[in-house]
Amino acid sequence: MDNGPIGVFDSGIGGLTVVDALAKSLPNESILYVGDTARVPYGNKSKVRIQEFTNEITQWLIDQKSKMIVVACNTASSLALDYIKLKFDLPIIGVIEPGIHSAISITKNKQVGVLGTNATIKSDAYGEGLRAANDKISVVSQPCPLFVPLVEEGWVSGDVPTAIATTYLEPIKRSNVDTLILGCTHYPLLKSILRQILGSDVSLVDSGEATAAAVNSVLSKNNIVSNKNTGEIHCYVTDSRDSFEALAGRFVHANISTITHVDIS
Amino acid sequence: MDNGPIGVFDSGIGGLTVVDALAKSLPNESILYVGDTARVPYGNKSKVRIQEFTNEITQWLIDQKSKMIVVACNTASSLALDYIKLKFDLPIIGVIEPGIHSAISITKNKQVGVLGTNATIKSDAYGEGLRAANDKISVVSQPCPLFVPLVEEGWVSGDVPTAIATTYLEPIKRSNVDTLILGCTHYPLLKSILRQILGSDVSLVDSGEATAAAVNSVLSKNNIVSNKNTGEIHCYVTDSRDSFEALAGRFVHANISTITHVDIS
Repeated sequence: MDNGPIGVFDSGIGGLTVVDALAKSLPNESILYVGDTARVPYGNKSKVRIQEFTNEITQWLIDQKSKMIVVACNTASSLALDYIKLKFDLPIIGVIEPGIHSAISITKNKQVGVLGTNATIKSDAYGEGLRAANDKISVVSQPCPLFVPLVEEGWVSGDVPTAIATTYLEPIKRSNVDTLILGCTHYPLLKSILRQILGSDVSLVDSGEATAAAVNSVLSKNNIVSNKNTGEIHCYVTDSRDSFEALAGRFVHANISTITHVDIS
Repeated sequence: MDNGPIGVFDSGIGGLTVVDALAKSLPNESILYVGDTARVPYGNKSKVRIQEFTNEITQWLIDQKSKMIVVACNTASSLALDYIKLKFDLPIIGVIEPGIHSAISITKNKQVGVLGTNATIKSDAYGEGLRAANDKISVVSQPCPLFVPLVEEGWVSGDVPTAIATTYLEPIKRSNVDTLILGCTHYPLLKSILRQILGSDVSLVDSGEATAAAVNSVLSKNNIVSNKNTGEIHCYVTDSRDSFEALAGRFVHANISTITHVDIS
């Protein structure tokens, strides 16, 4: 038993879709969330830089008594997860492994698509992971760099997101993919448009939901489940609270207790 | 006479449209450009943070013997120009004043539009400057947060940018604006789409061109014009060179001598 918080972080606000899934499935766990909004986005930055950022935030979350760490950012999960696993002792999971396991269990024809930021797709973390898990899997990857600014602009339905998503999904539609991993924490907010374009033949894997299931199993295995009645969500942002506060409600439905500015770097 | 470089900086790659205009009109001046790509974009960050970044980069450009500073970033010009002018002794100009003066000289009906990032529009730097220059001017401002990622994705023509630009320009079209300031250094790459949507009745003000004219006059006034035959362009980026190098040719037509990584923060 451990009533310490689960430490979750993302480059910005997108990781709140993981917080949303955690709050739904593990309502008695407290969550400490860091959005590195002073340095967002990670998707167009180098591996060295992202490892440095990830290291600093993980250390800070550990200093706040986090019992485990969830790297709720696909870019940081793909570029820096192994790096911090070597440096720190507590359980650490990313959002990529859970998404891969979920996709492998769903796909029937072994053709899996992956959408992500430029950095995530370039790292081929999903492709490598999928092929390592099952060497019969073939992977179609598609970078979608405009999806994050679209979601943050609040344009999740209508002509513009439909035109952008149609362009990005064209190679996915041409393929025989039956399962599509939403490889960025912002993308679940575009689910309905993606469903509309792809139809019901393609299953969408929301890595937030997959990650929440993985967290549950890590907590049990390590005997660090909370015995509190209810958990709280506390958010920390490295830039000002304003824009985070304005957008947070789009990403997480549970109540956020506090949003506080913090200097980490 | 001073053969030192003109120090130019932006949060990322967009300021290269200013470099492009400088290289065209002042080909015998050398340019030292910093793209703060490790911390791009500035448009969604707070004033305090942007002042801190601007201060660090200005100091670095001065350490490299820059004879004047051009803040080729609308967000930093609107939020941090006065701040660094108080701290440093050399001539410093931003991209906002020149854009304002150009618009004032062009508009006939005194109705001016401004496009920019969220932070630039929220600061109302253009609105305040236009009204201070002429209290009969009325201003229609429109934030266009998707334009920067669009340009960086290379989508500067076709359905998607047309749909996005049509949405953003709707309030401008409804108004009687006869002059439109492109209040972000990325936007000149969308000129042809903007012209197509607005028709020939609206004059577009490219602040890069306006800024190059202002630099010319600052150099003469301070007797710091170069007497070299040709200038060189040297670029420094705070993240890795790769993506900057891949995109730079879209923004600047002159030859870039070197692109180097530098740690400034």
